[in-house]
Amino acid sequence: MIEKLSQEESQKLLSEQCVARLGCVLEGGEPYVVPVNYLFKDGFIFIHSLPGLKVEALRANPKACIQVDDIKSFFEWRSAIAFGEFEEITDATELEEFLSEIMFRFPKLTPVETVINHEESPPAEMVLFRIRIKRITGTTER
Amino acid sequence: MIEKLSQEESQKLLSEQCVARLGCVLEGGEPYVVPVNYLFKDGFIFIHSLPGLKVEALRANPKACIQVDDIKSFFEWRSAIAFGEFEEITDATELEEFLSEIMFRFPKLTPVETVINHEESPPAEMVLFRIRIKRITGTTER
Repeated sequence: MIEKLSQEESQKLLSEQCVARLGCVLEGGEPYVVPVNYLFKDGFIFIHSLPGLKVEALRANPKACIQVDDIKSFFEWRSAIAFGEFEEITDATELEEFLSEIMFRFPKLTPVETVINHEESPPAEMVLFRIRIKRITGTTER
Repeated sequence: MIEKLSQEESQKLLSEQCVARLGCVLEGGEPYVVPVNYLFKDGFIFIHSLPGLKVEALRANPKACIQVDDIKSFFEWRSAIAFGEFEEITDATELEEFLSEIMFRFPKLTPVETVINHEESPPAEMVLFRIRIKRITGTTER
């Protein structure tokens, strides 16, 4: 039986997972979906990425969708979707805080660790951004 | 090290998986991502769904993106993205073929099984469609 998740249940799912699928819209109106690691905190989804198609697309059109799920079987799953807007993080204090959090959450992410320990700023090629969440919906089958 | 997957490797990943994330664009230009079960065959992604936001969105704007992945760890994963266009399946012969395939691939999907055995047409509320694939890209880290 398919049911809606409450806001609390949807937020719990967003907190539990570490891989999301990020949807954005390419120039020309084509949807684009990529897997990302993320951090859900204070109404934001924080993401770090190498430059590329998704960052270019989000800079041009900030509308974003973050989908996470926990699929145990065909008939037992939860899925949550957060809709929001892309904001690039460039402020030094915010960057530092973000990198510490990311390192805490994903301790195996060596490039970020290296940055924090030795350089105190992200490598030139890394883009840090967040999705400012406007609304969250969730669905489950159980 | 992040590398491109070849067309063959990307198609292999599409063939292996059974859960994809379907991206489409809502009215107002907002991206929308949902998990779906699918069948990859003859250059198409076949999907069945209850009516709802994704079907309404795809009927209005047929541009679609199908993303699949196999994530073993932060540093060992494959992801493929197929871009294409939504086509609703309404022809009786195509529907029958599609339902047989779906049943073969997902034998536990009781509703579809019931349809095939007892009614020979999908329940009124079920929507069957395919994404006509225009291009496929893939990425891996290993």
